[in-house]
Amino acid sequence: MEQIRTLTALLDYAKEVGPMKISVACAEDAEVMEAVEAARKAGVATAYLVGNADAIKAVTDKLGIDLANYDVVDEKGGEAAAALKAVELVSEGKAQIVMKGMVATANFLRGVLNKEKGLRTGATLSHVYIHEIDGYDRIFFISDPAFNTYPDIKGKVDITNNVVKLAHAFGVAMPKVAALAAVEVVNPDMPPTMDAALLTQMNRRGQIKGCLIDGPLALDNAVSPESAAHKGIKSEVAGYADILIVPNIESGNMLAKAIVYFAKNKTAGIVLGAKAPIVLTSRADSAEAKLLSIASAVALAAHQAKK
Amino acid sequence: MEQIRTLTALLDYAKEVGPMKISVACAEDAEVMEAVEAARKAGVATAYLVGNADAIKAVTDKLGIDLANYDVVDEKGGEAAAALKAVELVSEGKAQIVMKGMVATANFLRGVLNKEKGLRTGATLSHVYIHEIDGYDRIFFISDPAFNTYPDIKGKVDITNNVVKLAHAFGVAMPKVAALAAVEVVNPDMPPTMDAALLTQMNRRGQIKGCLIDGPLALDNAVSPESAAHKGIKSEVAGYADILIVPNIESGNMLAKAIVYFAKNKTAGIVLGAKAPIVLTSRADSAEAKLLSIASAVALAAHQAKK
Repeated sequence: MEQIRTLTALLDYAKEVGPMKISVACAEDAEVMEAVEAARKAGVATAYLVGNADAIKAVTDKLGIDLANYDVVDEKGGEAAAALKAVELVSEGKAQIVMKGMVATANFLRGVLNKEKGLRTGATLSHVYIHEIDGYDRIFFISDPAFNTYPDIKGKVDITNNVVKLAHAFGVAMPKVAALAAVEVVNPDMPPTMDAALLTQMNRRGQIKGCLIDGPLALDNAVSPESAAHKGIKSEVAGYADILIVPNIESGNMLAKAIVYFAKNKTAGIVLGAKAPIVLTSRADSAEAKLLSIASAVALAAHQAKK
Repeated sequence: MEQIRTLTALLDYAKEVGPMKISVACAEDAEVMEAVEAARKAGVATAYLVGNADAIKAVTDKLGIDLANYDVVDEKGGEAAAALKAVELVSEGKAQIVMKGMVATANFLRGVLNKEKGLRTGATLSHVYIHEIDGYDRIFFISDPAFNTYPDIKGKVDITNNVVKLAHAFGVAMPKVAALAAVEVVNPDMPPTMDAALLTQMNRRGQIKGCLIDGPLALDNAVSPESAAHKGIKSEVAGYADILIVPNIESGNMLAKAIVYFAKNKTAGIVLGAKAPIVLTSRADSAEAKLLSIASAVALAAHQAKK
């Protein structure tokens, strides 16, 4: 496949490989139903709507959404039961994507990680932001800006593996991964520089595959060839990174939100590391961001189906 | 004075209150001399050029800069001696701003912090990025993205006090300060949220004056009124922050560099906390950023002179 370089191209690709089936946990949520309906209209996805069927009907009636286009799965046993039921539909192969609705994140994730019916792979779950930024010729993947707070090196390996798979699903055959820190030199007084160096060497030893990792790099060295040249950094990654692995939740969160609020951009976000892509949108996300998040999940699901 | 809301307005203001005198430590540096000459031509500054007079002449000859416009102070005793001499000119009141030239940062700062001839105030030195961002009606001050790695709460108080003074110098009478974290709730498992809450309460108790602090806030809550409303945050600061206090060097560095490399912006940066503003540009800074950094130092020097 050709490399997906914009989120408009992503949406086209998701239409091409879709529609995929989403299983929505506790679909009685107006904002989530608007996103699901937009994805259905775009030809990207259809959905099981799992939850209290009466409550779901009340929400969709209000929004003018025709339930005839969906499979409603009535589950009145509470949100934990609905979450588990939604996950089960994915485990059974009836849906390819699971999406969080009106359910507490903890209950939702308990369903996802359920030992018998869940979607666990053994890897850490991680969040990724997917950004198209004006002036750049490729998509940036930032991980983990939201899910893992202060991952250790094992956690960072999982985070990296998860996002590398996603980049492959976007047609980036050998993604360039910048392990970010505040500086480009290993400094024992700055732990993120050491984690970045470890990830780099693990990649060289074949312990992390399918990508080219280099770090520590500061953000400017990672994305600007001029800045990397100014610093005299010799690296195939510096200046050309596709994936930005951040040291911790504060740096990742601020980096991703700076892009959303300060740059001309399009953004999506999903949760990785389970057997199926997880869509977990936030109320503050724009309608476009929610649709693009579903499209990202569709692209990843298509990639996983190929294997 | 009227609030300075753009870096173009800053440059106009610096011309109005300038020219101020810069003391350049080891001026035998082409990039630094270009910046100083640009500031002189803009009517913002004049300068003492401290260092090896022969080397300075070689550099300025090459650039076509007329040394008749400057005061050259020959100091051939090495960079540490030149740095101290440059600092001394500021301590003696002959210059209002000190600027780092071709001297290692450690040697330069040893001069700045020299007990007898230096510029120490007892406060921590801190770096600030000053950003004008397309689409926003005010300047953002981000601190500390470069100088203090993992400041404790005492360090963060100094960092905040330093940048509040700078905001005053820019005519922001009562700057709104967002103490940033990844989330807006105090979470004992996320130390930056606790530091942010402490800064907020210290401000309420009058321990940090001249500003209005609120935190923890995530970046979106800090700069977007809609995002703050989505989260139901009641705060005079949320959505309207002027100053962003970051938890640590990684988050600050990535936030500031995301603005420089991903947003339509103008950026300046200086070092605060000494008796006089310190200009310490980096090779990767654009010529415009260097000029705006000098202009920021001029605005701060004018503010300090008023007191």
